[in-house]
Amino acid sequence: MKRIDGRDYDELRPIKITRNFNNYAEGSVLIEVGNTKVICTASVEDKVPPFQKGTGKGWITSEYSMIPRATEIRIQREATKGKQSGRTMEIQRLIGRALRAVVDLSLLGEKTIWIDCDVIQADGGTRTASITGSFVALVDAVNKLIQKGTINKMPVKNFVSAVSVGIVDNKELLDLCYHEDSNALVDMNIVMTDKGEFIEIQGTGEGGPFSKEKFNSLMELAEKGLKEIIIIQKQVLGKLADKIGVENLEVNSSDT
Amino acid sequence: MKRIDGRDYDELRPIKITRNFNNYAEGSVLIEVGNTKVICTASVEDKVPPFQKGTGKGWITSEYSMIPRATEIRIQREATKGKQSGRTMEIQRLIGRALRAVVDLSLLGEKTIWIDCDVIQADGGTRTASITGSFVALVDAVNKLIQKGTINKMPVKNFVSAVSVGIVDNKELLDLCYHEDSNALVDMNIVMTDKGEFIEIQGTGEGGPFSKEKFNSLMELAEKGLKEIIIIQKQVLGKLADKIGVENLEVNSSDT
Amino acid sequence: MKRIDGRDYDELRPIKITRNFNNYAEGSVLIEVGNTKVICTASVEDKVPPFQKGTGKGWITSEYSMIPRATEIRIQREATKGKQSGRTMEIQRLIGRALRAVVDLSLLGEKTIWIDCDVIQADGGTRTASITGSFVALVDAVNKLIQKGTINKMPVKNFVSAVSVGIVDNKELLDLCYHEDSNALVDMNIVMTDKGEFIEIQGTGEGGPFSKEKFNSLMELAEKGLKEIIIIQKQVLGKLADKIGVENLEVNSSDT
Amino acid sequence: MKRIDGRDYDELRPIKITRNFNNYAEGSVLIEVGNTKVICTASVEDKVPPFQKGTGKGWITSEYSMIPRATEIRIQREATKGKQSGRTMEIQRLIGRALRAVVDLSLLGEKTIWIDCDVIQADGGTRTASITGSFVALVDAVNKLIQKGTINKMPVKNFVSAVSVGIVDNKELLDLCYHEDSNALVDMNIVMTDKGEFIEIQGTGEGGPFSKEKFNSLMELAEKGLKEIIIIQKQVLGKLADKIGVENLEVNSSDT
Amino acid sequence: MKRIDGRDYDELRPIKITRNFNNYAEGSVLIEVGNTKVICTASVEDKVPPFQKGTGKGWITSEYSMIPRATEIRIQREATKGKQSGRTMEIQRLIGRALRAVVDLSLLGEKTIWIDCDVIQADGGTRTASITGSFVALVDAVNKLIQKGTINKMPVKNFVSAVSVGIVDNKELLDLCYHEDSNALVDMNIVMTDKGEFIEIQGTGEGGPFSKEKFNSLMELAEKGLKEIIIIQKQVLGKLADKIGVENLEVNSSDT
Amino acid sequence: MKRIDGRDYDELRPIKITRNFNNYAEGSVLIEVGNTKVICTASVEDKVPPFQKGTGKGWITSEYSMIPRATEIRIQREATKGKQSGRTMEIQRLIGRALRAVVDLSLLGEKTIWIDCDVIQADGGTRTASITGSFVALVDAVNKLIQKGTINKMPVKNFVSAVSVGIVDNKELLDLCYHEDSNALVDMNIVMTDKGEFIEIQGTGEGGPFSKEKFNSLMELAEKGLKEIIIIQKQVLGKLADKIGVENLEVNSSDT
Repeated sequence: MKRIDGRDYDELRPIKITRNFNNYAEGSVLIEVGNTKVICTASVEDKVPPFQKGTGKGWITSEYSMIPRATEIRIQREATKGKQSGRTMEIQRLIGRALRAVVDLSLLGEKTIWIDCDVIQADGGTRTASITGSFVALVDAVNKLIQKGTINKMPVKNFVSAVSVGIVDNKELLDLCYHEDSNALVDMNIVMTDKGEFIEIQGTGEGGPFSKEKFNSLMELAEKGLKEIIIIQKQVLGKLADKIGVENLEVNSSDT
Repeated sequence: MKRIDGRDYDELRPIKITRNFNNYAEGSVLIEVGNTKVICTASVEDKVPPFQKGTGKGWITSEYSMIPRATEIRIQREATKGKQSGRTMEIQRLIGRALRAVVDLSLLGEKTIWIDCDVIQADGGTRTASITGSFVALVDAVNKLIQKGTINKMPVKNFVSAVSVGIVDNKELLDLCYHEDSNALVDMNIVMTDKGEFIEIQGTGEGGPFSKEKFNSLMELAEKGLKEIIIIQKQVLGKLADKIGVENLEVNSSDT
Repeated sequence: MKRIDGRDYDELRPIKITRNFNNYAEGSVLIEVGNTKVICTASVEDKVPPFQKGTGKGWITSEYSMIPRATEIRIQREATKGKQSGRTMEIQRLIGRALRAVVDLSLLGEKTIWIDCDVIQADGGTRTASITGSFVALVDAVNKLIQKGTINKMPVKNFVSAVSVGIVDNKELLDLCYHEDSNALVDMNIVMTDKGEFIEIQGTGEGGPFSKEKFNSLMELAEKGLKEIIIIQKQVLGKLADKIGVENLEVNSSDT
Repeated sequence: MKRIDGRDYDELRPIKITRNFNNYAEGSVLIEVGNTKVICTASVEDKVPPFQKGTGKGWITSEYSMIPRATEIRIQREATKGKQSGRTMEIQRLIGRALRAVVDLSLLGEKTIWIDCDVIQADGGTRTASITGSFVALVDAVNKLIQKGTINKMPVKNFVSAVSVGIVDNKELLDLCYHEDSNALVDMNIVMTDKGEFIEIQGTGEGGPFSKEKFNSLMELAEKGLKEIIIIQKQVLGKLADKIGVENLEVNSSDT
Repeated sequence: MKRIDGRDYDELRPIKITRNFNNYAEGSVLIEVGNTKVICTASVEDKVPPFQKGTGKGWITSEYSMIPRATEIRIQREATKGKQSGRTMEIQRLIGRALRAVVDLSLLGEKTIWIDCDVIQADGGTRTASITGSFVALVDAVNKLIQKGTINKMPVKNFVSAVSVGIVDNKELLDLCYHEDSNALVDMNIVMTDKGEFIEIQGTGEGGPFSKEKFNSLMELAEKGLKEIIIIQKQVLGKLADKIGVENLEVNSSDT
Repeated sequence: MKRIDGRDYDELRPIKITRNFNNYAEGSVLIEVGNTKVICTASVEDKVPPFQKGTGKGWITSEYSMIPRATEIRIQREATKGKQSGRTMEIQRLIGRALRAVVDLSLLGEKTIWIDCDVIQADGGTRTASITGSFVALVDAVNKLIQKGTINKMPVKNFVSAVSVGIVDNKELLDLCYHEDSNALVDMNIVMTDKGEFIEIQGTGEGGPFSKEKFNSLMELAEKGLKEIIIIQKQVLGKLADKIGVENLEVNSSDT
C-alpha cells in the first residue's frame, strides 16, 4: 500500500540542495525536500550576544519565517502582527541548538553566525529541512572564514541532519508531507549526527499517547532516513566534507 | 556518591500537591517539587477559539509565567518587556498539548479550560511540575462541571505526569534541580500516562550529541520516576482518581 | 449591623505577614489580608536608572501584577496582551513612591531595589497590602546589605503602611474587601508613616462627589487602621524594627 | 515674598478658555492657564464599550497626550515608542473619572463621549487644566445633542474643576507652575464641584511625609482657587451655565 | 562610457518572470531583474476590509518584505523587531495603489486579493520589480476566478509596470542597480500603463534639488523602459494578455 | 465656475504663519492654510543618529501626528494603538527629506534637528503645510544656533515649500481642501525651492491613470502656487530671509 505521493513507508522525498543560492550571504542554500522549499543563509557578524562577551567563544543563532503564501491557506505575516508565534520561536530555537551542538564555539572566536531559514513553500518538514539545509550553509560560511584566514581550525565537528517520522493510519512513516503530518497521531522530529548520535529527539502524541514499541520503530525509521540525508549532505559539500570532524585539523586558506 | 541535595541518582525530590489553593478557580493547586513551586489554576470559559467553533468540541490551553524573583537572579517581567520569550511560549504549548492528549474534548463540549501555571519559585523542572500539578487542577475543574450537571461523562481518559532526566558529570539523573540542569550535557523532559504510554519525549543534547544507549537508560529512569509521581497524583485526588479512564462512565453529580 | 464578612465598620481583616517566603530574594514576604494574598520581593541590583547615575543616590522601583485567576473572573495575562494596563501602572508607581518617601536614598548608594508585588489572590486592597508587605521585604533586603557590610547606616527612616477606606451604603468602612469596594461610592487609599504623617492620600468619588465631613471621618478611620497595621509590621520585624528611624545610627553587621 | 512669576501664594495664574476652538468636534476649547495650554475636544460616538452595552447608560472616557516640545526638553513621542507611559495613563484615567462623576450617564443614553486633551505647552498643572477645560467642552458637546433632539434632559449635574496645590520652600502655594512643581515637597491635585464637594483628592509627599495640619491648609488653599475657577467656567459658558445641575430639567432644543 | 555592469545608460537589466512559481497561490511569479529577485504571490480571500463592506466592490492590498540576507549587510527581521519600517509601509502602499488603479473593483465582487512581495535578493529596484511581477500574478489569480466561474468579466483594465530612473554622476540612467541607486542625486520611480498613462510618479532629490529639464529627460528614459517591460509582461502572459483591457469582455471559463 | 470654498482653480487658500508660537522650542510656528492648522517645532539635540556619528555632519528628522479630532470623524490615537500608521510614516519621511535637501548638513555639525509637526485641524494639505511651516521653524532654530555662536555659517541653502494639486471633476485645481482631495482622480504633492527646482514630485492616480498632458498642467499650477508661498515665507522671516542661500556667508551672532 503506497502513500499519498506514491512513496514507500520508509522512503524519503527527493532532496535537492543548491549551494550559493544567494549572492551576498557567506553561506546560502536552497533546500528542496519534495514540495517543501527553504532558503537557508548563514551570515557572519563580528560580535557576540552580551552573555558570551569576553569568553572567547562564538555563537550561532537562528531565525525562521514562512512567506505568507508558503501554505495552502495564506497565513498572516508576523511582521504585520507585530510578533512571532510560539511555533516560530520553538522552531528557531531548535535550529540554533542543533547547529551549536556540532560546532566548537571556541574555535569560532567571538563571532555570531546568523542562520536565517525562510520557507518559500511548505509541504511538511520545514523545521527538519531547515536544519539539514542550514548545516550546509553553515559549513560554507565557516569555510569562507578559513579562506580569509580569520580562523584557522575547522570548528564544525560533526554533520547534522534532521527528519520527521510519524504514525498515520496506524502505520509508521518516514518524512511526512503536510497531508500526512496533519493526520498523524504521533509526530517526531529527530536530529542526528553522522556518528549516529542524537542531538534532539522530540516526539509528540498529538492524537493520544503512544507505546514504547511504536516509539522505537519510529526511531529506527528516522535513523535510516538520517543516514541517507547525511550522504546527500556529503555529496553536496564535495571535498569540503572531508574537513568536518577531523580532530584538531589545522586548515590553511590555501587548502580549501 | 550523592547528589548536591543528598538524593540518589534515581530519586525524586519530595512532591507536595495542595488542592484548592485558590478561592476562585474551578480547579487550583500549589505544587511543590523540592524548592520548585508552581500555582496551577484551571479556569472554565464558556466558549472556544475560532478554529474549534461549531465542532461540539472543547479546548484546553495553557499560559505559563515566572514571577521576576522566582530565580536566583531577578528576570525581567514579560508584561514590562511587552512580549513573551520563546522559552515561555515553548513551555505553555507543551503543557497544553500534554493535557489535551488525555482529554476527550468532545465530552467537554464547547468550553475552554485555561490552565495558568505561575511559578513562584524555580529550582529546575518548572515545566514538568506544571504538567503534573495542572493535571490535578484540571480534574478538579472538570469535576466541578460534572457536579453542576454541565457535563455528564468524565472527559479525562488518563492520568498524565511529567519529569525531567539528564546526564550530569557522565551520570544519568532523575528529576534535575536547577544546579544540575544548568550543568547537564543532555536534558530530557518526558510526559507519560498511567498506562505507561508517552505523550511527549523531548531530549536535547545541550552539550553535544548523545548515544542511543544513554537515551534508553534516561528513558528508564524517567519511567521509574513517572510511576511514582502518578501514585502521588492518585493519592492527592482520592476518590476522584477512580473516575479517570473508566470508559464511557456516566457520572452523576450526586456521585461526586 | 455587621459587614458581609462579620466585621465591625472600623475593623481590619486579619493580617498575616510571612517573612523569607522566597529562597532567593534579598527580602520577601507573603502578606495575607483576609483573602487577599500578595508575594512581595525586594531584589537588589547594583546599578541605578540613567537619571540617577553619578548622584551617589540609590533608587527604589516597583512592579505589580496579578496572576490571571487571582480574581473571581479570569483576567487576561498582561504578558500575553503585550502591555500593562493603566491600573497596573498606576499601582506600581504608587508603591514605588510610598517606599522611596521613607528611605534616605543617599544612604543606599547607587543601587536599585526592585519591589515586585505579585497578587496571587485578590479580594480588595491589593495595592495597600502590597505597600504594607513590601515595606517589610524592603527592610529585610536593606538589612542584608548592612550584614554584608555593603552599606553601614540604616537608610529606612520610617515605617510605612497603607490601607483603604470607603463609603458603602452610606457607611464609612475600614479596609474594604472586593465586594465592598465594588459597591463603594467613595474609595480612598491612605499611606501613612509611624509618625502619623502622610505620604499619599488618594480619595475618589467613584459614585459621585463627597463632602469634607465624610472625607474627614474616612481619614480618621484610616488613621486608626494604619496604627494597628504598623504594630503588626513591628511585631513581624522583631528586633529589626528598632533600627528604623533612628537618626544617623551606625549599624554594624555584627549587630544584626 | 513673591513667587517666581510674581504671584501671591494664594493666587491663580490667569485662565483663558476659548470655546469652539476646533471646527469639527462637538465640543472643543483651548484652555490657557498661565503658560500651560491644552486643547480639549469632546467627541460623541454612537456606541459604548462592551461592559456598558445593554445598560442604557453612556460612557465618558479620556485620552491625554503632550506634543513632544510642549516641554523645556523635547520628550519622545509615545506613538513612536509604541506605548503610553504610566504618567499618561494615570492622568487620562483621572480626567475620565472626574467627568463621569458629574454626569448622569443614564440620561446620556448608550453613547460614548471621548475627551481628548492634547497639551501644546506645559508649564505645570496640565492635568488640572485638562479637567477644567474638558468640562466646558463636555457641556458644549452635550448641549449639541440636546439641540439636535438626541437627548432631552441635561445629563451634567455639577460643575467640576481642578487645581494643584503644594508645599515649596515650606510655603503652601496655589496652582503650581512647572518650576514650583518640580521643587515641591508635597504635591496635591484636587477636583471639586460647584457645591464644594470633592471628586478626587490626590496628595503625594514626593519629598517625604507631611502632617495633617499641612494637608488641611493645602485643602483650604485649593478650595479658594477652585471656587474662582468655577466662576470663570460659568462666565465662559454664559447662559448654558444655568442648565447645569437643575434637577430633572426638561431641555428643549429651542431653548438653547 | 559604460555603467558598472556594462549596460548603456538607457538599457534595462535582463528581466525574467517565472509564472506559477508557487504550488498554492492563485497567482505567483518569481521576477528577476538582474540580481534583484522577488517572489510575488496573489491570494484570493472571500471577504473585504470593513470600509468596503456592502459596496459590492473588491479590494487589492499588498505586503512587502525582504528576507534578512537579501542585502549586502544582513538587516534585522521585522517580525523580530515587532514592527514594519516606514520604508516597508511606503512600498507596500505603493504596490497596492498601483494595482488597484488598473482594476475595476466592482467587477471583482467583494473579494480581497492579497499581493505578497517577498524579496529574496535585493540589488536595487525591488519596489518596481514587485509591481511589474505582481501584475502578472494578479492576472493569473483573476483568471483562476474566471475559470472557476466566480466572476465573469475580466476586471483588469490595463497592464501596469514600474521602473526606476535616476541621476548618477550627472548622467540620467534607466533601471538603477543598488550601487547606482545609493549614489544617485535624484531617484525616481515611475508606474505606467500600456496606454502610456501614469499611475504614479515619485521623484526625490536625495542629494539636492533638480531642474525641470532633468526631470523631463528622466521621464522620457522611464517611458522607454516601461514600454519594453510591458512587452515582456505580454510575452509572459501569452494568450491571457489579450483579455486585458478589452472593454466589457464577457469571459467564459471555457475560453481560458 | 467656483470651487466649494469660492476660490478660483489656481488660487491658494489664505496662509498665515505665526512665528515663536511655543515658548520652549528653538524654532516654532503655527501654520494655518485655510482650515488646516499645524504646529511645527524645531528642536536641537546635541547628538546624531548612529549612522551619522563621526562624519562631522548633522541630521534633520521629522515626526508627524494628528490630534484625534483634527478631522471630521475622530481617528484613533496612534499612541493608544501602539504604532504609527503607514500614512504617518510616509509623511514624516517626506518632511525630513524635503528639509535635508536644502541644508548643508556639514555646516550644522553633529547635531540633530527634530521637526515635530502636530496637526491640530486637518482640512487637506497637512503634509504640504507641514513642510512649508517647518521650513520657517527650522530657519529660526538654526538662527538661534548662530546667535549663540554654536555654528557660524548659515547651513540653509534654499527656501523650500510644498503644495498639493489635483484633478477633481476633470478640472486641475491648486491647493486641495479635504473635500476636493477625497474626490480627486489624481493627487500630487510638489516640493520646490526658491530657485524653481524640485525636491519631491509625487503624483498618484488614485482614480485611474493620467496622461502626460494632465501631469504637465498640474506641474504648472503647482509652480505658480509655490512661488506665491515662498513669497509669504520670505515676508514672515523678514531680515532673516536674506541670509538663506548666500554662498559661504559667514554669519556673526551680532548680525542677527
